[in-house]
Amino acid sequence: MNLDKLQNWLQENGMDVAYISSPTTINYFTGFITDPEERIFKLFAFKDADPFIFCPALNYEEAKASAWDGDVVGYLDSEDPWSKIAEEIKKRTKDYQNWAVEKNGLTVAHYQALHAQFPDADFSKDLSDFIAHIRLFKTESELVKLRKAGEEADFAFQIGFEALRNGITERAVVSQIEYQLKLQKGVMQTSFDTIVQAGKNAANPHQGPSMNQVQPNELVLFDLGTMHEGYASDSSRTVAYGEPTDKMREIYEVNRTAQQAAIDAAKPGMTASELDGVARKIITDAGYGEYFIHRLGHGIGMEVHEFPSIANGNDVVLEEGMCFSIEPGIYIPGFAGVRIEDCGVLTKEGFKPFTHTSKELKVLPVKE
Amino acid sequence: MNLDKLQNWLQENGMDVAYISSPTTINYFTGFITDPEERIFKLFAFKDADPFIFCPALNYEEAKASAWDGDVVGYLDSEDPWSKIAEEIKKRTKDYQNWAVEKNGLTVAHYQALHAQFPDADFSKDLSDFIAHIRLFKTESELVKLRKAGEEADFAFQIGFEALRNGITERAVVSQIEYQLKLQKGVMQTSFDTIVQAGKNAANPHQGPSMNQVQPNELVLFDLGTMHEGYASDSSRTVAYGEPTDKMREIYEVNRTAQQAAIDAAKPGMTASELDGVARKIITDAGYGEYFIHRLGHGIGMEVHEFPSIANGNDVVLEEGMCFSIEPGIYIPGFAGVRIEDCGVLTKEGFKPFTHTSKELKVLPVKE
Repeated sequence: MNLDKLQNWLQENGMDVAYISSPTTINYFTGFITDPEERIFKLFAFKDADPFIFCPALNYEEAKASAWDGDVVGYLDSEDPWSKIAEEIKKRTKDYQNWAVEKNGLTVAHYQALHAQFPDADFSKDLSDFIAHIRLFKTESELVKLRKAGEEADFAFQIGFEALRNGITERAVVSQIEYQLKLQKGVMQTSFDTIVQAGKNAANPHQGPSMNQVQPNELVLFDLGTMHEGYASDSSRTVAYGEPTDKMREIYEVNRTAQQAAIDAAKPGMTASELDGVARKIITDAGYGEYFIHRLGHGIGMEVHEFPSIANGNDVVLEEGMCFSIEPGIYIPGFAGVRIEDCGVLTKEGFKPFTHTSKELKVLPVKE
Repeated sequence: MNLDKLQNWLQENGMDVAYISSPTTINYFTGFITDPEERIFKLFAFKDADPFIFCPALNYEEAKASAWDGDVVGYLDSEDPWSKIAEEIKKRTKDYQNWAVEKNGLTVAHYQALHAQFPDADFSKDLSDFIAHIRLFKTESELVKLRKAGEEADFAFQIGFEALRNGITERAVVSQIEYQLKLQKGVMQTSFDTIVQAGKNAANPHQGPSMNQVQPNELVLFDLGTMHEGYASDSSRTVAYGEPTDKMREIYEVNRTAQQAAIDAAKPGMTASELDGVARKIITDAGYGEYFIHRLGHGIGMEVHEFPSIANGNDVVLEEGMCFSIEPGIYIPGFAGVRIEDCGVLTKEGFKPFTHTSKELKVLPVKE
């Protein structure tokens, strides 16, 4: 269980209390997530006492009904949450001198408010790196959810491809994708704002869907993802709407070759930088290196961007169980953009993608 | 200009530097917002030097093209952002002893990383209350956006009402609302997850849309909102699908009377608690007080929940220019739920709602 890893870490590092603040991290450790709005929602774990979730009384029943079978302590709006937390901790243990806090997911206000309850305690230890580290390695139950999220992304591509017709706006395609995801798959939450970019719009990877209308004989780029039981998918495909030009075919094939080469090359023991280099070399050798303007990939899990970063210069060693994207892109201003992306898990046998939509260049028929 | 207020505050409080971290607050002061993912995006203002936005080099052009006409400093992934910020500040001013930081919107990691660059400076002053305070009072240009967002919510209700038919799921109604918002209005972002609850599901205000199917002769509750140029709408309506029972009509009318009474009573100079009491008294006198289980309302602006909280016991005095919701509800477990909500602005002449969908009980025809 993930929480055991945290308790072991506390013991090994001579820490008494872990103060967990980010709702995603609380979900990772407990299986419970809620949106407390401006109220207080925290998890406390100890080297030698029982952990507890602290949340608004409004969310108490929801927490008790969740996958979390540990203690839940609720507080009313009329109570001071910080002194209530302090009381609860002092009931559980006499050891509360050394605290480890999630500095990446904790506001200064919440840090200082609880520190004020334990003015003599040491709150200097950061838990963020440890949490990012254990979250790198996905368990089988996490992989099940990531694969399901991948299936939803594959479904979304089919809807998007079918929606293309002369004059349809990028936004209308996005609308249709998200509508059918909700209606047919019950996907109420995407993992990020769905991207559909037609023609030269796709040359700017930072631009959202616009009122730009799809025209025959251009490339259309899709980048989309869903949330499935707290786990994200993220995938990109680029298709031709009508007959592409030779130049469009060329950048597509260079990019596809680079993506496949990186998928084939990915092995435990290589560095992130080396993997980035596999794709980058192919694109550079083909003369398009200056148009591949971002890293090869990013980790994925409960968040759509996690560690490891698959980037030039990142010497982190890739290990079995890590999940990340492989997504080279070629963006030629004023002309077109191509990106092909799969997220997957690294295994002894190599990289196993979560998405399976074909990467052969798809030439869609023009529809009036 | 909003930034002038911040600079004045720095001077009045003997502060040298303001360190602004929350993207929403940066947008409030500069008109520029972006999602820097895990990278660094900050605003620095000074008592007597020019302010600057600090952001990833990737976002530099976007910032320069935005409404912000001040300085932008970009950094590359290969640079240390914290030392680059420190250099930039030391170029601009010799005064960097006294810092005011946004403790509610700043992580401990980012607080400590910048403090380490200025180890002798005092970072203890909190800006959060000041920012929340000035954001309470909306300018005319902010009101224009809030009204536009309100129009989008009114449109969404019409789509939702028309979508009701025998056996349609709550989720399918949500799908239809968000689809048409995107397609017809270009609304790509709701201000929160759209809520549609039919029958007894509406008795639980914390439950999301489910696969529950709409049946004739029940109440259906809608709670929805959009984002318009960075400003939120949030409104609720409850309608009858088919002929409601007398008891349904009764709780609807009690709630409507309470909501209208609060709208009519809202005046500058009264407290939030007094306003909450106006609606609560009517519902309590009618015998339903125990079923009105939340506060009367919340502030709204760039976030869907801001100050002031319109709640029993909150003695904040309501003033001209404050924007908030008035949303009493009656939730009878196992039976039905009613909520009617408008957000609006408080003026000398009273409360002016941003949404205008009729609050007469609407009895929608049953459709096969």
